[in-house]
Amino acid sequence: MQTRIAGEIIAIGDELTCGRVANSTSRLAARELFLLGYDFAVMQCIGDNPELIGATLRTAISRADFVLVTGGLGSTDDDLTTAAAARALGLKTVSHPVLEARLRDYLAAQGREGDFARFARFAVLPEGAEPLDLQGRMAGYLLEYQGKPLWFLPGVPSQMAILLSEKLIPELTRRFPQPPVRQHLYHSIGLPELDINARLKPLEGRPGLQIGYYPVDAAVDVSLTVRTENAVQNAQLFTEADTLIRSALGATLFGENSDTLPECLGRLLEQRGLRLVLAESCTGGLIASSLTAIPGSSHWFEGGVVVYSNRLKEQLLGVPAALLADFGAVSKECATALAKGALAHLGGDLALAVTGIAGPSGGSPEKPVGTIFLGLAAQGLDTPQVQRLSLHGSRQEIQQQTMQRALDMLRHFLAHS
Amino acid sequence: MQTRIAGEIIAIGDELTCGRVANSTSRLAARELFLLGYDFAVMQCIGDNPELIGATLRTAISRADFVLVTGGLGSTDDDLTTAAAARALGLKTVSHPVLEARLRDYLAAQGREGDFARFARFAVLPEGAEPLDLQGRMAGYLLEYQGKPLWFLPGVPSQMAILLSEKLIPELTRRFPQPPVRQHLYHSIGLPELDINARLKPLEGRPGLQIGYYPVDAAVDVSLTVRTENAVQNAQLFTEADTLIRSALGATLFGENSDTLPECLGRLLEQRGLRLVLAESCTGGLIASSLTAIPGSSHWFEGGVVVYSNRLKEQLLGVPAALLADFGAVSKECATALAKGALAHLGGDLALAVTGIAGPSGGSPEKPVGTIFLGLAAQGLDTPQVQRLSLHGSRQEIQQQTMQRALDMLRHFLAHS
Repeated sequence: MQTRIAGEIIAIGDELTCGRVANSTSRLAARELFLLGYDFAVMQCIGDNPELIGATLRTAISRADFVLVTGGLGSTDDDLTTAAAARALGLKTVSHPVLEARLRDYLAAQGREGDFARFARFAVLPEGAEPLDLQGRMAGYLLEYQGKPLWFLPGVPSQMAILLSEKLIPELTRRFPQPPVRQHLYHSIGLPELDINARLKPLEGRPGLQIGYYPVDAAVDVSLTVRTENAVQNAQLFTEADTLIRSALGATLFGENSDTLPECLGRLLEQRGLRLVLAESCTGGLIASSLTAIPGSSHWFEGGVVVYSNRLKEQLLGVPAALLADFGAVSKECATALAKGALAHLGGDLALAVTGIAGPSGGSPEKPVGTIFLGLAAQGLDTPQVQRLSLHGSRQEIQQQTMQRALDMLRHFLAHS
Repeated sequence: MQTRIAGEIIAIGDELTCGRVANSTSRLAARELFLLGYDFAVMQCIGDNPELIGATLRTAISRADFVLVTGGLGSTDDDLTTAAAARALGLKTVSHPVLEARLRDYLAAQGREGDFARFARFAVLPEGAEPLDLQGRMAGYLLEYQGKPLWFLPGVPSQMAILLSEKLIPELTRRFPQPPVRQHLYHSIGLPELDINARLKPLEGRPGLQIGYYPVDAAVDVSLTVRTENAVQNAQLFTEADTLIRSALGATLFGENSDTLPECLGRLLEQRGLRLVLAESCTGGLIASSLTAIPGSSHWFEGGVVVYSNRLKEQLLGVPAALLADFGAVSKECATALAKGALAHLGGDLALAVTGIAGPSGGSPEKPVGTIFLGLAAQGLDTPQVQRLSLHGSRQEIQQQTMQRALDMLRHFLAHS
């Protein structure tokens, strides 16, 4: 099998070397490129030190097929990457005409021509570098040096992620086509990682085949990577593994590749022309927020209530005060009443309700932190479905898992109705 | 100023370089040691490759005062660190008598003497290395090489954290006593990074003083690091810088160090004994979710509604259909009505309302994507406050910024009422 293309990552910033900020961008790049067939032999994190930036860059160029540098491209005084890189490579820095024009237009539009000097370094690149975003909304450029591509991306994770997928990856795959790699991601919920692992034992140690397991709150992602000499081998191996994985995961498989549980649920609802409403207590809006993060969610999501206080449970959804007094807000009875009440008071075709104890306080021997009740009511369903969960973890972890389990409850209901 | 003691970290493992696992141990060590006055010039992540492990270790030793190596110390076949390090440093590997005895006892106690060979490498260290846990519960050792301490710790974060605080830090501080470091973080919202930078120019280039700027959605974090010969200098320089930063940020300073905007707001509300309700449209529960992620938020957060559809805006909050028809849901008028309606129908002392276009679709020439109206109603406030925002970015970025700006609007209201 031919030698693989190997890159190096250099993440720059004192905020990283002092441990104040987690270096999430290097991990993102490593993960994305690995799945495309590229290795990172070395990932380095260094501070805002021009000499060290230069030396590290030169070493990386001498070893790697390509280099990714992140951070230090802003226009504040601790942004030293461009100057240091240019010096280390014996290049001049020049103001890029297009970026400079954009900047002048931008300032002019705000009547701030006078500020140009303060922002000028935004447009300054090593000579020969090509900006990745000609609109100048994000810093970042590609510099060709001794025939090797050096990508300089911003340290801001959201911007880095955009330029990685829209600029770096297309260009990298064009320059260094890799032996055919086929990679598929399976999203599963309800089956523990170890059980999946046991079911997939037959795939272990098969040459050219890699299986990875990534628990994500209550879900588990299974990644299948097939990388062999040729496309025919790839296809055979992939089909074989794919078939086994699908049968192993069965109904716990909710999505693939970039799918998310909220998106999959949204598609199901839209296909059926059903509209969902929510009554959230302990998740406090997290479920609504995960659904409304999806463009077009207004087609199938009507809205919801965050009935954090008992008063609002009674007032907005008509949960009887007596019920709350007798069984408590964290109870099968309350979950049922919340789901019924949401359907009655908010409308919609389906209502999902959540009540429980996310902690850290509020637990009791018979209802410890992590005790959650899910309720599901639907038009034409006589009595709401109810599930009791016993979850573990921090408040946020319990809220996240509750969100996933609630959406999965609805997913199963839709699958079997 | 005396030259500072600088270390290097080498984290070893294919799971790190392929991005499957986040390198949390390096960050932990960097943060803990930075605050004790030690720098990490370079933090590296490399795969399970003996040659690369050896070369990287030799380079680190040549540059650093001490080296921390994590990972690859287990007893599976991809644990290569000890053998690679010994080879690179020209040392033999030997079975450590105490560890070997512990291992034999442990196996004997389980009647598994026969398994010794399988676990034997657990006791094997480079000659001269001293185990950090003589009980053998955790891998890890200290190796003195050319007068420099090299710590080898497990990659398992929980074990690494224990040995870091109980073994590495006491020994490091004994060998290299350091002057103290003082670091402080300021969270600001509403002032662009560059304007803050301009106001803090006087602090630039001051020896012993470091300022960093980190945009976080609509907010900007400013970090102040003071590190001088002695505590008195530290205190003076810190006070001087702290004073300037506070006056520069003024009312845009909402929190410090580990504070978050929702937490700061929660404290303000709790101090005043005020209860908040929410009416969210385009943020779809994100604001409620950011507040209810905080333990104890039930003390000051009553609940809210996600009125995604116009029907729910009318039905739950009594927004007049005529108003929606005349001005549209994304309007100053609707934000006002939502805030008033939330206060009236949900109760509470304060109501925050959000309506807008998060995109990607739904924009128009007069109301492009990113047009947001915030409404704030309060008991005793005749007419709600309204703010119009014009935000940019992805749907999620616009929702995030809207959340921050809405919470900040409430923060300012509370500060001036």
